[in-house]
Amino acid sequence: MVDNATYILTATCLSRLGTVDVITHFLYQQGCYIKDMHSFDDTACQQFFLRAAFCHDKGDAIDVEAFKSQLNERAKPFNMVWQLHEPDHIPKVLIMVSKYDHCLNDLLYRYRTGHLNIEIPAIISNHPDLKGLAEWHQIPYYHFPITAETKPQQEAKVWEVIQQTQAELVVLARYMQVLSSAMCDKLNGWAINIHHSLLPGFKGAKPYHQAFAKGVKLVGATAHYVSNALDEGPIITQGVETVDHTHYPAELAEKGKDIECLTLARAVKYHCENRVFLHHNKTVVFPD
Amino acid sequence: MVDNATYILTATCLSRLGTVDVITHFLYQQGCYIKDMHSFDDTACQQFFLRAAFCHDKGDAIDVEAFKSQLNERAKPFNMVWQLHEPDHIPKVLIMVSKYDHCLNDLLYRYRTGHLNIEIPAIISNHPDLKGLAEWHQIPYYHFPITAETKPQQEAKVWEVIQQTQAELVVLARYMQVLSSAMCDKLNGWAINIHHSLLPGFKGAKPYHQAFAKGVKLVGATAHYVSNALDEGPIITQGVETVDHTHYPAELAEKGKDIECLTLARAVKYHCENRVFLHHNKTVVFPD
Amino acid sequence: MVDNATYILTATCLSRLGTVDVITHFLYQQGCYIKDMHSFDDTACQQFFLRAAFCHDKGDAIDVEAFKSQLNERAKPFNMVWQLHEPDHIPKVLIMVSKYDHCLNDLLYRYRTGHLNIEIPAIISNHPDLKGLAEWHQIPYYHFPITAETKPQQEAKVWEVIQQTQAELVVLARYMQVLSSAMCDKLNGWAINIHHSLLPGFKGAKPYHQAFAKGVKLVGATAHYVSNALDEGPIITQGVETVDHTHYPAELAEKGKDIECLTLARAVKYHCENRVFLHHNKTVVFPD
Amino acid sequence: MVDNATYILTATCLSRLGTVDVITHFLYQQGCYIKDMHSFDDTACQQFFLRAAFCHDKGDAIDVEAFKSQLNERAKPFNMVWQLHEPDHIPKVLIMVSKYDHCLNDLLYRYRTGHLNIEIPAIISNHPDLKGLAEWHQIPYYHFPITAETKPQQEAKVWEVIQQTQAELVVLARYMQVLSSAMCDKLNGWAINIHHSLLPGFKGAKPYHQAFAKGVKLVGATAHYVSNALDEGPIITQGVETVDHTHYPAELAEKGKDIECLTLARAVKYHCENRVFLHHNKTVVFPD
Repeated sequence: MVDNATYILTATCLSRLGTVDVITHFLYQQGCYIKDMHSFDDTACQQFFLRAAFCHDKGDAIDVEAFKSQLNERAKPFNMVWQLHEPDHIPKVLIMVSKYDHCLNDLLYRYRTGHLNIEIPAIISNHPDLKGLAEWHQIPYYHFPITAETKPQQEAKVWEVIQQTQAELVVLARYMQVLSSAMCDKLNGWAINIHHSLLPGFKGAKPYHQAFAKGVKLVGATAHYVSNALDEGPIITQGVETVDHTHYPAELAEKGKDIECLTLARAVKYHCENRVFLHHNKTVVFPD
Repeated sequence: MVDNATYILTATCLSRLGTVDVITHFLYQQGCYIKDMHSFDDTACQQFFLRAAFCHDKGDAIDVEAFKSQLNERAKPFNMVWQLHEPDHIPKVLIMVSKYDHCLNDLLYRYRTGHLNIEIPAIISNHPDLKGLAEWHQIPYYHFPITAETKPQQEAKVWEVIQQTQAELVVLARYMQVLSSAMCDKLNGWAINIHHSLLPGFKGAKPYHQAFAKGVKLVGATAHYVSNALDEGPIITQGVETVDHTHYPAELAEKGKDIECLTLARAVKYHCENRVFLHHNKTVVFPD
Repeated sequence: MVDNATYILTATCLSRLGTVDVITHFLYQQGCYIKDMHSFDDTACQQFFLRAAFCHDKGDAIDVEAFKSQLNERAKPFNMVWQLHEPDHIPKVLIMVSKYDHCLNDLLYRYRTGHLNIEIPAIISNHPDLKGLAEWHQIPYYHFPITAETKPQQEAKVWEVIQQTQAELVVLARYMQVLSSAMCDKLNGWAINIHHSLLPGFKGAKPYHQAFAKGVKLVGATAHYVSNALDEGPIITQGVETVDHTHYPAELAEKGKDIECLTLARAVKYHCENRVFLHHNKTVVFPD
Repeated sequence: MVDNATYILTATCLSRLGTVDVITHFLYQQGCYIKDMHSFDDTACQQFFLRAAFCHDKGDAIDVEAFKSQLNERAKPFNMVWQLHEPDHIPKVLIMVSKYDHCLNDLLYRYRTGHLNIEIPAIISNHPDLKGLAEWHQIPYYHFPITAETKPQQEAKVWEVIQQTQAELVVLARYMQVLSSAMCDKLNGWAINIHHSLLPGFKGAKPYHQAFAKGVKLVGATAHYVSNALDEGPIITQGVETVDHTHYPAELAEKGKDIECLTLARAVKYHCENRVFLHHNKTVVFPD
């Protein structure tokens, strides 16, 4: 069964007897072998979450339409929200940047070497600086400058590219612009931002300057879904680095780059491997 | 369902269609709600592993005998090896020490504060030094001195205490003696040792001296099941600490104590919460 | 020179040509061999910091009075603030606790095994619960209950014990009471508190509940000097631990205990080894 | 004094009264302000190490020739080996690779963004694969294929490039070839290799396969100076990553890439900032 194509099924609903069985008994009846499965019941809000990686026992391809319609019937009485992720589906990830290139460089490296199994249909920036990097990777680069006055128009252009490219995830790789409330709403649950502090500490601008002023001995980075409340979106993953008195804001920023890259890349990977559930401003993450 | 008593079911067998369903469909039919479940298929050796935490949906106690006999029937065609761990069962853990007290002190602290939900029916040592610590915790302390000549007799006494106390796990908390081959065989799979290096690096005696001689920049500790091959038993968990040129062997030993304590305590917790599967000299661990 | 008694000299003054030489040339002239030295110039506030560990080259004891008066002359033109710490001086550390015993247990373990080279002349608590632990270590235990009304009287008693015991450091090992502003002033620079969050995140009460509500993926602990502004004192060191969606507040608290212990113990060790400089609400720490 | 150009002075000699003073008193007399200094006395082998970062107090440039000749006189009685590193000197680092590009990509990113303040005069490989990456960074790429038979000739070509480019450091960024004994001797102390295990664990070929076979729960990477004994050279720094039963060799290799990059980059940075002393098959590293 090792090399058979792997499907991912994710599901969530209110806690109730039989939630696991709805999925697992169905998969058994369909001749599907479960390679890896994780379920969790959040007793604080009575919500159930499940992720199963499976393949067809005979190595056959699955009749996806039939599978979906039958599972739909089974899951309906549970008001279960579920998704089937097919093995040959490669998620389209649109990246937005400003002038900082460390996160972009890292994501592009993981993309071009297959570590991140994604497509990148477009890179959008409010500055022209990173065009060369995009071009070397043969990815279209859209330079959409922005001012306070032109923000609505600029965001309209961004949205147009998102739609044209059929992007499934938007990654703000140090984009440095606050999205409008309307834009945040449209991207709810499918846009990831990297913030360079251990949120909720040091929200807002210049977190490394804030960290320096406080004399903290650890700095970090937080990857979270974008939400209307600035730097308050549901946290996906966080990373940390020790620092000391020799680190002025510039040194903190320099030292923080590595952890920003690693944290953002991990969040993108988790999202694209369907390991993240969003629920009430928090996440459930089944890591690898 | 939050506060209902939690049972743990663990199971393993060769990979084959339906392995998960055997368990999950059965639990559903028994009116059991699965709170947390993890399954894993080791494709390298075609072996399946599952751990499910569940409670009765109505909060009823489960008829354990009936449960077991019915599950037995279901699991037999799969040659499944499984165990049911009841909520009120507190594992009996016997601790063996020599003169070093850091791991013992740490385990006793976690025991007396309930962090480790275990009983400690006895502490055995080849030295009298730690008697006071045992007594303060009101735990019987057996002082069984050992020499090369008296090893068989000493181990016979140790074995007698293990049997009398019906210990389910033996923890070598820096015991500093190599168990005989016969003793290792008897304790196979239910004795945990802590070694003060990142095994397989620095096997055998004086690992901190070996680490100093090599000038390594990281030292660590390894908790593993005891096996006949010295320091070669299946690894459960490992911990690590950065060091530098200022650490002579004595400083390494001092610095290593914290990581030895944490690593051993984690291994004991994993074992007692039925999170560890032993398979072919390696382990599968479903962490919390 | 290895085994000669080690003295520690610490010094700080405004940045200026010759700051290092004042110390190092003097030590050379006194026949003192510098085993380990660290100096740092904070360019942001133009302040110089130095720590030197040294011994007499011949192994002789140093004439401390003569040493001090001569160094005084040399250091005066620099307005240097310096301290000589003699090898046989063991700092007196008074510990204050409430009901939680994990930090106390950890400090007492390190004290009784010599890992922390300190004396503990007294333990003060507003509850009687930890008396047994203190007594087993043969340390006087003062039970001073406190209410909003009796706070001034209680603090007066605490202060009396501090003075009688000639304590040089006060450690709030999860004391759970906010010291009065007057008390904070008296203890400025020689009282260390452990807070169970990565300050400045989650200040104030119930930080693990705050962390749970936010869904953070890392929790931590912060050891800091006590100051008038609650949880705003100069940070000495911080520790961190990964967590996930399975950690409710009780699990966070349980998991956080280890990191609280390690972080507090490290801060106490740094302070007692004269590795910490306090300057403008921040610290310079020369670690081992 | 903040922005004055910073010189680095490193020195080592046998332990003896006055070692620090030789340097610090001289710097004072030269009108040099010490911004950051670290000295360490290795009592096990009676060797002294010092690193001082300083600038001229008035911001003047230093008369390097005069400085060197005067310091030479002072240091001679101590048989002190010392080096002055000037602020405008940018070390030339030649990189050798095979087919794996993750370490090269990471080093090039740090180079082109100034995180690593180095020049890269050449990249040498036994394969043509990474030519494009080199060219995009406008760095000469030498493709020197190698077989068992042509090894001496190939190494002769490599050596020629090293000499022509006046490389000061050679970095084996996953070069995958064992250098000849003669080559190792020539590069002694100025060639850094990255090995993908926590040496001395898993020396030699396929360390991730070895790690998988052992079932370790931590994998890591080791940056060390190249020496004649394979994977036995003096360790500069090591990094570590947790893994579990789900990591087959391919997953270990994938997960290990990040830590290989970070560990190698740190070692190169330490070396180029003159933070590493090589002494008797071990290193003394004064980190930032």
